[in-house]
Amino acid sequence: MAGTDRTLESLAGGPAIVLVEPQLGENIGMVARAMANFGLTDLRLVAPRDGWPNEKARAAASRADHVIDGARVFETVREAVADLTWLLATTARPRDSLKPVRGPKSASAELRARIAAGRPAGILFGRERFGLSNEEVGLADEIVTFPVNPAFASLNIAQAVLLMSYEWMQSGGEDGAEEAPRFAPPEAEPADKGDLHRFLDHTEALLDRLGYFRPPERKVALSEKLRTTLTKANFNRMEVHALHGVLRHVEFKLDGGQE
Amino acid sequence: MAGTDRTLESLAGGPAIVLVEPQLGENIGMVARAMANFGLTDLRLVAPRDGWPNEKARAAASRADHVIDGARVFETVREAVADLTWLLATTARPRDSLKPVRGPKSASAELRARIAAGRPAGILFGRERFGLSNEEVGLADEIVTFPVNPAFASLNIAQAVLLMSYEWMQSGGEDGAEEAPRFAPPEAEPADKGDLHRFLDHTEALLDRLGYFRPPERKVALSEKLRTTLTKANFNRMEVHALHGVLRHVEFKLDGGQE
Repeated sequence: MAGTDRTLESLAGGPAIVLVEPQLGENIGMVARAMANFGLTDLRLVAPRDGWPNEKARAAASRADHVIDGARVFETVREAVADLTWLLATTARPRDSLKPVRGPKSASAELRARIAAGRPAGILFGRERFGLSNEEVGLADEIVTFPVNPAFASLNIAQAVLLMSYEWMQSGGEDGAEEAPRFAPPEAEPADKGDLHRFLDHTEALLDRLGYFRPPERKVALSEKLRTTLTKANFNRMEVHALHGVLRHVEFKLDGGQE
Repeated sequence: MAGTDRTLESLAGGPAIVLVEPQLGENIGMVARAMANFGLTDLRLVAPRDGWPNEKARAAASRADHVIDGARVFETVREAVADLTWLLATTARPRDSLKPVRGPKSASAELRARIAAGRPAGILFGRERFGLSNEEVGLADEIVTFPVNPAFASLNIAQAVLLMSYEWMQSGGEDGAEEAPRFAPPEAEPADKGDLHRFLDHTEALLDRLGYFRPPERKVALSEKLRTTLTKANFNRMEVHALHGVLRHVEFKLDGGQE
């Protein structure tokens, strides 16, 4: 089944996600969903216990139908990975193995580099119960383990795929990769200091009118504290505008205004 | 229910994971498992649909019993976050919100810095079906969104918790810790959310009394805007105390008080 089409697909869809003898359709579905969340599409199933297609898988995929529909079934791991040029095996803990061991971030960077160079690559995920056999791990070039709490290290298969898919997208930089935190959308530009100070003056005048600054010798200190508080809040222009409105309303009421 | 024990617990266990009206016990269990995988322990449930304890949750937690046993149930989000000093809300996509938006990596670094400084912090996760309400998002200081494939953005609740927990553990590595921002001196501890919400309620009650929320159908929107503005300000304990004093003074004057 190897061929051009398949190779192109592997490249477009990121690394192949290869599930070895998955037992529960629900897990396959959740794997598909996790892949779709992070832009992966090439799902390969080795001898799924309950056959294929599997309606439980489709239901659990939560509309990641393109991944479910595109999934391919193989009888053996070797057939499933035949067109790949680089293969990772996921294991719960580093085994007594001579293979290099990476974490998901470093593994994703390496996958990204290889796939960008036109070289199909994939990741093996083991059975729910007992993972991958030594022989299957032996097929891989390198091992990925997840940096989990050693006291509680069991990740389920969908979670392991999720983390790899997430790191895959992160490694891409462009699309979904995490950007620096965004502060203030364009309509919420920080108020300039002129606006802010007019607001602070307005607040102070109103509180003065209300006799808040007592005794008088405390006025400077109290006012400064209040200004510090309201400056630190880093209100944007809209917010300053709205807060002016609140102050004007209080003044209106104090003047005996009725609506 | 605020107190030393709870605060210590929040700090030892990393950020609090707060699930708002979770429906399926299975999801709660998978959340607990994901937390345990990455060393988190402080699970809080707001009005879980099927009550608590929940045997399906325990089964799905796959031996993360310490998280399940330690989970606490609250009737409202406000009660659940009352002892926290910094709160993130997870949303599927950045809303039309004036709150800062971060990805999980940056959010984890910020959580790590705050918690290392002895300041309890937490993360809100919404309902399976429709996430968090605007009002609930309004309680948070900042928003976290996940860098997912925009064409397929739905993450389930356990997956969202898994990614945050994973990044939390990642953030514990050497690099992140070194550049921890410096926070204000100890006398300027951030107000906890209980204090903040009492101040927001106080503000709203006063403005209501003054007839500020007009027309009545605008009340919810106006109040939400004001709460967002004043939450974003991240006032510390002293500041909230002083602002209460300002409100009380205005009330005193409105009641015809003379000094």
